[in-house]
Amino acid sequence: MAEMNNIASGANIHINTHRQILSVSSNGSNCDKMEHKAGGWFAEHCPIWPGQAHLLKVEKVLFEGKSKYQRMMVFQSSGYGKVFVLDGALQLTEKDECSYQEMMTHLPLCSIPSPNKVLLIGGGDGGILREISRHKSVDQIDICEIDTMLIDVYKQFFPDIAVGYDDPRVKLHVQDGTEFLQSVPNATYDAIIVDAFDPIRAEHELFDSPFFESAAKALRPGGVMCIQAESLWYQSLDIEQLVSRFRHVFGGSISYAWTVVPTYPSGVIGFLLCSTEGPYVDFKKPVNPMDPDQISGVAKQPLKFYNSEVHSAAFCLPTFAKRRN
Amino acid sequence: MAEMNNIASGANIHINTHRQILSVSSNGSNCDKMEHKAGGWFAEHCPIWPGQAHLLKVEKVLFEGKSKYQRMMVFQSSGYGKVFVLDGALQLTEKDECSYQEMMTHLPLCSIPSPNKVLLIGGGDGGILREISRHKSVDQIDICEIDTMLIDVYKQFFPDIAVGYDDPRVKLHVQDGTEFLQSVPNATYDAIIVDAFDPIRAEHELFDSPFFESAAKALRPGGVMCIQAESLWYQSLDIEQLVSRFRHVFGGSISYAWTVVPTYPSGVIGFLLCSTEGPYVDFKKPVNPMDPDQISGVAKQPLKFYNSEVHSAAFCLPTFAKRRN
Repeated sequence: MAEMNNIASGANIHINTHRQILSVSSNGSNCDKMEHKAGGWFAEHCPIWPGQAHLLKVEKVLFEGKSKYQRMMVFQSSGYGKVFVLDGALQLTEKDECSYQEMMTHLPLCSIPSPNKVLLIGGGDGGILREISRHKSVDQIDICEIDTMLIDVYKQFFPDIAVGYDDPRVKLHVQDGTEFLQSVPNATYDAIIVDAFDPIRAEHELFDSPFFESAAKALRPGGVMCIQAESLWYQSLDIEQLVSRFRHVFGGSISYAWTVVPTYPSGVIGFLLCSTEGPYVDFKKPVNPMDPDQISGVAKQPLKFYNSEVHSAAFCLPTFAKRRN
Repeated sequence: MAEMNNIASGANIHINTHRQILSVSSNGSNCDKMEHKAGGWFAEHCPIWPGQAHLLKVEKVLFEGKSKYQRMMVFQSSGYGKVFVLDGALQLTEKDECSYQEMMTHLPLCSIPSPNKVLLIGGGDGGILREISRHKSVDQIDICEIDTMLIDVYKQFFPDIAVGYDDPRVKLHVQDGTEFLQSVPNATYDAIIVDAFDPIRAEHELFDSPFFESAAKALRPGGVMCIQAESLWYQSLDIEQLVSRFRHVFGGSISYAWTVVPTYPSGVIGFLLCSTEGPYVDFKKPVNPMDPDQISGVAKQPLKFYNSEVHSAAFCLPTFAKRRN
């Protein structure tokens, strides 16, 4: 992270026109002043991806603020629509949020017949709620999100995403996710979607907490959980170890899938799909397919990314990722 | 492209630590001087992707030069191994070249039984030669590459890629691709791989040249061609129009596939697979599968990315891309 800190601590970057090498040198100045000028660029700090950065041109900063839990920023980019940044990390852009939200939701919900009760932990933006809302079989959508300011900011600046809250089946629980899970009666949910943490890795401290055990108990037999799980290109990704840890906790089938999100580091993100002991779930085969042309629930547009072919393809891994297994 | 030109014309970029907004302002200085310092960054100019840039940290510039045809630079990056830059555009990195080279080669060669004669146009780096070399059925590998300096630079700095030239079946033709194709007797090749142009789009001037017609004639009936064909996320990509133009020229089946390359803009790149009239080619089904663990030909390592599952998955398109069809 020395490189990114170099930049982040107020360096001058000099860009050489013809050879395109930027020389970075610290100028020692205090850079805490806000920069709202048109013509600015947003750069993401990404500790696990040193030596690279993705820049988005900022047309206008629309919001900056800090809740009890985190810092937030919304800006209008010139190429990706509005962008939401949480504690310095890019959360989503209007242009490419579709792949993450749709895959995160429909990979689990299309893998089981007629999901009925669904819990979302985190995902305060409302995009996954919007996607759950497309499922007619669902009659209860609980969301556990602790940061109400985040919800308000999304409702103000991203109405097409926060539209998920308009579904009357949605019930918001403003609470810590682990606490909420521990209060849930056993076998309550058909599906739990966890959109609350950094991408999960085998060494993640969450495995030492009661979080996943509580999630497994909150699922019915053969119920499913989906959580984001690191890029395929991340050198230390060990899918076999991840699968083995989750299998130990959930007891059913566990599969790794992935999708593309251009504005995430390396352009891809993985998902861990977990089922509890009970009716066998073959995540690769969508038993509950969706009509790609239908507009249902509170979503105002049909699916942009997900379809049954893309669902199954998401489980096909490059050889290097299989070999790490 | 005003944004990138702003940067490229010698701007100072000021990075704000906490809010991560870069302010860009032209400083009017002459930036033509080479910057070889450690701590520099490489940024790609990409006219069709305004408002974004991908930066790679430069550990050391290893080579800069200019052939009769193009400017070249090789640098050691901190996260992606060695990087080759051609006329300012990132061509490949050691870390992620595998997905492009393997998919570009094996998508066409695994779609037909026992390919025998293969032509590569461009691809002077040798990586596609290395991949063709894995196919035992092949007994003739012609490469038409006009820039011998590019070949030499790759041989010097990227021996694991340029290793493709070590295959005794390889014959190098230093010539313009269109001229070479026009000199080829009809129905000579089972497969042609074109790695010589910017990603093809329906409005590409190549359609007005005899290039594709000559390529189609140079293929046997039911022979196949593969050419790179723009990112799925590129707003103006019109797959249907592309397919229709290529079908008109080639007369057989035409399919669009895609793969992930983290260091390319938007993180993905497409391929057009074309077959000539003759025995039907179903590109989605690899009839000539490869053993992912075998090391064959001049390659020193087994396949890193390609396998039969990834082959078929490459043809599954997100809904937004299908809808554009």
